[in-house]
Amino acid sequence: MGVPDAADLLEDLDDDHAADMAGALPIGRLADVLDEMEPDEAADVLGDLPPDQAAQALAQMEDADEVRPLLGHPDETAGGLMTTAYFALRRHTTAAQAIDFLRQLDPDARTPYYLYVVDREKRLIGVVGLRNLVVADPQATVETFMDTDVIRVTAGTDQEEVARIMSRYDVAALPVVDEQGRLQGVITQDDVLDVLEEETTEDVLRLGGIEPGPVSNKPYWSQRIFEVARSRFVWLLGLFVAETLTGTVLRHFSSELEAVVSLSFFIPLLIGTGGNAGSQTVTTIIRALALDEVHRKDVLKVLVRELATGIVLGSLLGVVAFGRVLLWGLPTSMAFVVAVTILAICIWANTVGCLVPILADAVGIDPTVMSAPLITTLVDATGLLIYLRVAAWVLTEI
Amino acid sequence: MGVPDAADLLEDLDDDHAADMAGALPIGRLADVLDEMEPDEAADVLGDLPPDQAAQALAQMEDADEVRPLLGHPDETAGGLMTTAYFALRRHTTAAQAIDFLRQLDPDARTPYYLYVVDREKRLIGVVGLRNLVVADPQATVETFMDTDVIRVTAGTDQEEVARIMSRYDVAALPVVDEQGRLQGVITQDDVLDVLEEETTEDVLRLGGIEPGPVSNKPYWSQRIFEVARSRFVWLLGLFVAETLTGTVLRHFSSELEAVVSLSFFIPLLIGTGGNAGSQTVTTIIRALALDEVHRKDVLKVLVRELATGIVLGSLLGVVAFGRVLLWGLPTSMAFVVAVTILAICIWANTVGCLVPILADAVGIDPTVMSAPLITTLVDATGLLIYLRVAAWVLTEI
Repeated sequence: MGVPDAADLLEDLDDDHAADMAGALPIGRLADVLDEMEPDEAADVLGDLPPDQAAQALAQMEDADEVRPLLGHPDETAGGLMTTAYFALRRHTTAAQAIDFLRQLDPDARTPYYLYVVDREKRLIGVVGLRNLVVADPQATVETFMDTDVIRVTAGTDQEEVARIMSRYDVAALPVVDEQGRLQGVITQDDVLDVLEEETTEDVLRLGGIEPGPVSNKPYWSQRIFEVARSRFVWLLGLFVAETLTGTVLRHFSSELEAVVSLSFFIPLLIGTGGNAGSQTVTTIIRALALDEVHRKDVLKVLVRELATGIVLGSLLGVVAFGRVLLWGLPTSMAFVVAVTILAICIWANTVGCLVPILADAVGIDPTVMSAPLITTLVDATGLLIYLRVAAWVLTEI
Repeated sequence: MGVPDAADLLEDLDDDHAADMAGALPIGRLADVLDEMEPDEAADVLGDLPPDQAAQALAQMEDADEVRPLLGHPDETAGGLMTTAYFALRRHTTAAQAIDFLRQLDPDARTPYYLYVVDREKRLIGVVGLRNLVVADPQATVETFMDTDVIRVTAGTDQEEVARIMSRYDVAALPVVDEQGRLQGVITQDDVLDVLEEETTEDVLRLGGIEPGPVSNKPYWSQRIFEVARSRFVWLLGLFVAETLTGTVLRHFSSELEAVVSLSFFIPLLIGTGGNAGSQTVTTIIRALALDEVHRKDVLKVLVRELATGIVLGSLLGVVAFGRVLLWGLPTSMAFVVAVTILAICIWANTVGCLVPILADAVGIDPTVMSAPLITTLVDATGLLIYLRVAAWVLTEI
């Protein structure tokens, strides 16, 4: 494989495989391949190599100066996404000079859509779209046709925030500056598409009760079965231990369960419904938090809405449950217990389902960790407590 | 509000609010505002208006010819995403002529990054990046420096596929052609960011047991409580009805539950664990299907993997459960029943969790509909059947 092909392949592979392949190349050849890659992609590969190997490769690279500033930024920040392959002009450059500058670039390099204008201290002061450059009078200086209202982020900005800004402002590239406003690099939209895919995978897995990590982020077929089992086991075990609370509650009410054995018939139905209602609420709230529609200051307003929804849903399902219990030929008192419990559990599940993610967000925990399985487990034991308390209060046999 | 401000506002509003606002404008003014908008956005607004109002506005628009070809494509296809505001050149056009052409365009229009080259029949034959145009010899014809290897889609391509192609090939714009290869329009990357956000919301909600629809797609605060309750009720009721199966199973075993009341202590724990294991599997498979990593032909390979994972996880949790039951002071036979059931339920939950989404995909149902709550409900009744069968077989008291 030639150097350009190897560079293309490294850019397309996922991080683990890229590091494996890069690690297997002789240092001199690795340096050539990295020189051929986009600086941000080369920095990612270097970041995944053992430090001494990375240092040796960097020492032999021609474009080391482009790659070095990109190392050391956390992967999930604007600094970790940006590339140094941007084009900075001074304000007195003419359109013709800028075009000459473009002409000297490697024709295979990724096309830049914007040229950035910086002052003497490298502070970002304007942006010029390629089309504006094309149609400008060749002798005009860029300051006469640049746009001074440049949307920018700092290097520490989280990648989700970067994606949100690029989506909201419909910009194809986003400049990254340091605290002093000096241009550090540029993030292009294709990097953001990758971020969105990665973030979606993480969110979806968390909602399903899998903690995202080095294993779950790999493509399905490259995950080893024992690694998969290990990554899932932690959550399963945690939920299992939490769920043993339900056994404690039921043991506490064993005399009631012995007196009226039909009480146990409704256990899965009641906690299942509570889990489903809680799962709907927590999913809605997590998504609203992710889309920046709900904030922690809205907690009371959200609670009121979700309580109201819980009352409506619980009442409707309570009526259905009442009829279903009677159809099984059980006494009206039992039907009443089940119906009242459904109402109470729906209200309780919606309360837990909206408060937990908002509170998690408020104390700095990613709300997607508060997954549907977790809420379900939390609601199960308390739901049983409600059920058996209501039963002990209504049923005369107990 | 002036016409340009109204146009900006309409482009930024979500579909429902945009239609409300557009519907309230007098026809003449609406036509002016639509003329000011990007053609694809104007077409979206027209598609959401009552047909006679849309026809009247279209009749008064100056740019009706740009918007008309965009109407009638389903919203979720390449045709529904594309804009007609693209730039097509003929192969003998010179670079200087192309630049002159760009100069005549409205300077406020969105910057095009690529110019497309078409033949006499409007068939797409090449693409020219703006940078190539800038640096080309002014007298060179575009065919001498165009790229003839153009990635393209047809108008009927699903928007998720469009997003995937743009992400994979890192292109900032994707041309849309008809069956004969004639250029119909162009999709830009900012449209795809919106698609990804919308699709993520739909997937996440489905995983939480909420059917996406006109209500759930609205921002959180503009959903009315009764609409929310209605949209959630359908799923809750369906799951409730399915979950009543658990009652049927338990009634069937009522003599066993009467003989050994401690059997009921483990009902929530066992079905909860089955639900969690199934939820992990279904989430993994749905994501792998969405990322195109797993296909229906892989169904046996997937089943083998997930069965193996289920056996590993079930064995580990079975050991934990065995110890926990003994710690509660219950007999070894009971601990054995619970441990064996956990193993069987984990295997069964993983089987259901991987087969259901793949089979759904194979028969053309969106696998995200096979949400974690649905799998949980499916596994609950069968899990109880396994539990009580094992108990009847092992426990001598029954």
